[in-house]
Amino acid sequence: MKGAILGITRAVHLVDITHEVAPHDVIEAALALEAVVPVFPPGTVHVAVVDPGVGTARRGIVLESDGQFLVGPDNGLFTPFVARPRWRAFELTASEYRLPLVSRTFHGRDVFAPAAAHLARGVEASRFGPPVTDPITLRWPSCRHVRGRIEGEVIHVDRFGNLVTSIDAPTLDALDGPVSVRVAGRTLPLIGTYGDLRPGGLGAMVSSASRLEVAQRDGSAAARLGARRGMRVVVSSSKRSTGKRAIAS
Amino acid sequence: MKGAILGITRAVHLVDITHEVAPHDVIEAALALEAVVPVFPPGTVHVAVVDPGVGTARRGIVLESDGQFLVGPDNGLFTPFVARPRWRAFELTASEYRLPLVSRTFHGRDVFAPAAAHLARGVEASRFGPPVTDPITLRWPSCRHVRGRIEGEVIHVDRFGNLVTSIDAPTLDALDGPVSVRVAGRTLPLIGTYGDLRPGGLGAMVSSASRLEVAQRDGSAAARLGARRGMRVVVSSSKRSTGKRAIAS
Amino acid sequence: MKGAILGITRAVHLVDITHEVAPHDVIEAALALEAVVPVFPPGTVHVAVVDPGVGTARRGIVLESDGQFLVGPDNGLFTPFVARPRWRAFELTASEYRLPLVSRTFHGRDVFAPAAAHLARGVEASRFGPPVTDPITLRWPSCRHVRGRIEGEVIHVDRFGNLVTSIDAPTLDALDGPVSVRVAGRTLPLIGTYGDLRPGGLGAMVSSASRLEVAQRDGSAAARLGARRGMRVVVSSSKRSTGKRAIAS
Repeated sequence: MKGAILGITRAVHLVDITHEVAPHDVIEAALALEAVVPVFPPGTVHVAVVDPGVGTARRGIVLESDGQFLVGPDNGLFTPFVARPRWRAFELTASEYRLPLVSRTFHGRDVFAPAAAHLARGVEASRFGPPVTDPITLRWPSCRHVRGRIEGEVIHVDRFGNLVTSIDAPTLDALDGPVSVRVAGRTLPLIGTYGDLRPGGLGAMVSSASRLEVAQRDGSAAARLGARRGMRVVVSSSKRSTGKRAIAS
Repeated sequence: MKGAILGITRAVHLVDITHEVAPHDVIEAALALEAVVPVFPPGTVHVAVVDPGVGTARRGIVLESDGQFLVGPDNGLFTPFVARPRWRAFELTASEYRLPLVSRTFHGRDVFAPAAAHLARGVEASRFGPPVTDPITLRWPSCRHVRGRIEGEVIHVDRFGNLVTSIDAPTLDALDGPVSVRVAGRTLPLIGTYGDLRPGGLGAMVSSASRLEVAQRDGSAAARLGARRGMRVVVSSSKRSTGKRAIAS
Repeated sequence: MKGAILGITRAVHLVDITHEVAPHDVIEAALALEAVVPVFPPGTVHVAVVDPGVGTARRGIVLESDGQFLVGPDNGLFTPFVARPRWRAFELTASEYRLPLVSRTFHGRDVFAPAAAHLARGVEASRFGPPVTDPITLRWPSCRHVRGRIEGEVIHVDRFGNLVTSIDAPTLDALDGPVSVRVAGRTLPLIGTYGDLRPGGLGAMVSSASRLEVAQRDGSAAARLGARRGMRVVVSSSKRSTGKRAIAS
């Protein structure tokens, strides 16, 4: 893919975000995009290829959102961005922005990387093909706030064994006072940062991607709790409790 | 290695292809080069270091092929390029294109990266040392076409569990009509792309590197078939059959 | 982190050294820095984030040593450079060189990457905050030379299964004549390079990072010897021996 890009333009910085998304795991890839896209300067082109439908009728698209461009298969990868108020998308059909020969097995190289290079050169997104108003979106795990409780789920286990949840920082901020987090039959404190835990301790915190995460200091929370994707997570306000705060051992 | 390069020239794009070749697996590295080198623009310098013989009498070389430069140990890494009609190679002996101190354990840093940087700066390949007319070549797994059958073998298992074979697209194209693929006691259909498989289905297809590959949708073909490097793969024309096409379950 | 850097300056080469340091393994990260920093051209900015104390009272620092800049948490990551004669360090407190919002969980993105970008732009290290004269240092495994013997330990096992030791090349050079290396109950020869071993053979050699390493040809010395970090390694001069040189089988 980088070879295809450099054959079109050299006026780029090529940055790898991750090559460690599990095969075909579109949700994990979408979470990675959600976390990193906003940190890049406006006008950045992000190419994402988790593409089990390559070579079938699934479309390729470019999606523009908040001044950033996302290029890849139309399979739900860009769900977090479609959920936002302003975006536009176009199908990648124009042959002049593809490699001369397009395989049925690697559109990353033959379609997406060339489109990204042309976008980086300044080609207008609308020139790649017809508008797409109905991009595929994933069932995106979210959370519910009901009478002092937020209910969500584990949506990803990262390489440190941290549990990433569907509970986002703004929803969490709506709970008053001290809260505690229940997951896998355990009640954990909400802490500010990893280093607030004592060695071996478990806790929940707001991650750098603005999601509630569960971590174990010097260990894997996933292994300790036997937790996996889909497991329920509940945050409860503990302001009406006796004041005895739950501390994980 | 990148530090050594940037100490010589900064007018480069540094691109990582892979750091995941199995230790000492020269064939896997040669396959990676075969797949990626042609996609890069002419004049690209490719440095490859799978180098169990570092510090021994094995030579270091630069090989020029189709306008691309390959730099590394002379241990067979560049076999796919030596098999092509036009190439020339030179031994890396000139001390002015090495780091001042050359270790016996890391020529990637001390010899190959500096040579690559000087090539990128425009130094002529012939200035690095004497011509090499007999580079080491690997026994390169190939395939035989005999009366309507192509016989080859599994030459690599990739990180998705796909089986890369020694059967190349041009040889395959010479078979008329529908074909089926036998491997590990199973008969699989030849399909166009991964997404043509139903969930869990097995099939063979021509990869983006123009090789026959065997894949399982949403799974590992290697695990499912108990397949490994060296296992026999046979493609048979099924045009004289009853027309009932073999479909993998 | 790269997004944060490119939002501040694009006049940089972004180079990844490793993303494979074990979680929270400050010693492994410090060894990686020790090995690579000196190879980069003067003025390079090295950002290292193995940071279990993020968001706590631990400081962030920039350390300048031999014309190179190191940026990261003050947790011992830079121990090899503090051991050298000339360095200076400053705490990263100036808000104008951080992202506008600093999380408590990812200073790599919010503090260290921005500081690195500003250093690359030419901002003087002293402008980031007050001088730091007492950076945290690790107990750095070293070696002792006593009457013809050097005693050290295994300090890291790399991905090839090689044992990196605390015995450095200058100390080793002080032993006269032929030497042999004892580790895990075995006596191994000191060889010049990996390729001097016969297939399956074990030996010790000076690595490209100027440390004594133990390797097995075509295998993992760690697995073969059951070796792990902390295991004792002794190098003995064999000049008073019978001249029969120990050869590993």
